Amino acid sequence: MSPTAALLFADLLGVAVFAASGASAAVVKRLDLFGVCFVGFVAALGGGIIRDLVVNQAPPLAFDDWRYAVVAALTAVAVFFFHPHLARLRRVVLVLDAAGLALFTVTGTLVALRAGVPPVGACLLGMIAAIGGGVARDLLLREIPVVLRREIYAVASLAGAVVVMALYRGDLTGWPMVGAGVLVFAIRIVALRRNWNGEPAP
Amino acid sequence: MSPTAALLFADLLGVAVFAASGASAAVVKRLDLFGVCFVGFVAALGGGIIRDLVVNQAPPLAFDDWRYAVVAALTAVAVFFFHPHLARLRRVVLVLDAAGLALFTVTGTLVALRAGVPPVGACLLGMIAAIGGGVARDLLLREIPVVLRREIYAVASLAGAVVVMALYRGDLTGWPMVGAGVLVFAIRIVALRRNWNGEPAP
Amino acid sequence: MSPTAALLFADLLGVAVFAASGASAAVVKRLDLFGVCFVGFVAALGGGIIRDLVVNQAPPLAFDDWRYAVVAALTAVAVFFFHPHLARLRRVVLVLDAAGLALFTVTGTLVALRAGVPPVGACLLGMIAAIGGGVARDLLLREIPVVLRREIYAVASLAGAVVVMALYRGDLTGWPMVGAGVLVFAIRIVALRRNWNGEPAP
Repeated sequence: MSPTAALLFADLLGVAVFAASGASAAVVKRLDLFGVCFVGFVAALGGGIIRDLVVNQAPPLAFDDWRYAVVAALTAVAVFFFHPHLARLRRVVLVLDAAGLALFTVTGTLVALRAGVPPVGACLLGMIAAIGGGVARDLLLREIPVVLRREIYAVASLAGAVVVMALYRGDLTGWPMVGAGVLVFAIRIVALRRNWNGEPAP
Repeated sequence: MSPTAALLFADLLGVAVFAASGASAAVVKRLDLFGVCFVGFVAALGGGIIRDLVVNQAPPLAFDDWRYAVVAALTAVAVFFFHPHLARLRRVVLVLDAAGLALFTVTGTLVALRAGVPPVGACLLGMIAAIGGGVARDLLLREIPVVLRREIYAVASLAGAVVVMALYRGDLTGWPMVGAGVLVFAIRIVALRRNWNGEPAP
Repeated sequence: MSPTAALLFADLLGVAVFAASGASAAVVKRLDLFGVCFVGFVAALGGGIIRDLVVNQAPPLAFDDWRYAVVAALTAVAVFFFHPHLARLRRVVLVLDAAGLALFTVTGTLVALRAGVPPVGACLLGMIAAIGGGVARDLLLREIPVVLRREIYAVASLAGAVVVMALYRGDLTGWPMVGAGVLVFAIRIVALRRNWNGEPAP
């Protein structure tokens, strides 16, 4: 597999995982099939759409490459019909979700840097690309976004975005970027295992 | 009336109907006059604003042509003061709302195709242009968007968008597009009459 | 201080005040430190981001100039740790908030007019730049936006935007614009003191 094909494959895997998280939450709220697909689409592609709007990439990738929308929709349909079997996959889904977070952080930050967004803005945008879909998912389902409450999730993304930005400015692209992704993944997985949580204000 | 004038008239009628739906929902939530106007504006023009941002049409039509905002605001003000009389018009409003859905689907899909958005993305964007205002209305009023729950509404729009896309690629513009709009309208009206609803996941 | 430096200073003061309002609301909802910073960022910069997306200014200022994000984040962190002491500052915060509303209205309307947005759209956009962050803050925290319910807040902004537009078309920039800002501030402060509120529909 060429590097480009591998990256596309990884990107679509991230889309599928985030679509599954959105669709599962929508099933719990008893939405119909269309609603489940819509929330899956937003959870998977919402962060990237915001990223592309901010850097003026028109149309956003989610509308420009049909594979993204189709993967999101098919995943959501599968969740709609087979969700009782998914409960057993909960741990797998959490691991894949951490992988999606890592991947979207790296690609989001790089897209922003390549579009000429300065360092601080690019790190923020990389994080928004990674967590934005989850925030939009929770808003559609009338929840205060879970990433804003307790979990070490967005902070893992932000840490990775800073590393991506530093590597990019040092011209260390390619494999070092994979390291930045692994860092996000590792922080997230350790936070899950050790049950690290943010605390409300004192 | 020239075709352009007829289209503008139809567009503004759609804006008025969607503004009325937003304003009515806002009155129920006991918002003040400004809030009712704001929700009416978002319900009527939110979908089109998202559409224009995605295809990089700046500024979006809602800000570029004063008639859109003024029609939305006047409709909302009328609903604020005369809403007790509107209850009797419920059936008329549902029919006009189906017409607005049809019209916004056709114009939204065409705008996307003309801006060079590929087929799948253009269909999604046409549907988002048609249902986006209603989704934003429900979010502002802290409801899970009704189009994601039960009704055959977005699906009618998506079906119409696919037909518009097929006709456009076959160079069948003009009257055939009216047919696509009639299809959306017909599916929606039949769904209302026969009480077709989506079901939650099994 | 040069006029440009003074404007930047005023702008960052507005960012700090709006970030404090977002962070305070997030602390009440018991969000963690990241959540408090995120809501502070959105409350302070959300309106300007929408403004810049609509006029196709890419990337939006909030991502292009690091000082905006850093001021918002530092303010939110301060609120997170010192919020018990802020209760006593409630009146000061309300006055600063009125100043932020005035400033963002004037700058938002001017940005829109300079980008070629026609008068009605520019006034709407100036108001959205000023109130958009507060609306997004309330949506993230699962509240019906407070500006849509009772307060004379958005209307003060809209009145100021109309004055800015009229002055701009009459080539009266510079000091007269300060007058427009003072108008917004004055309406808001008088509304607070006399407890002017909007009423729900009859």
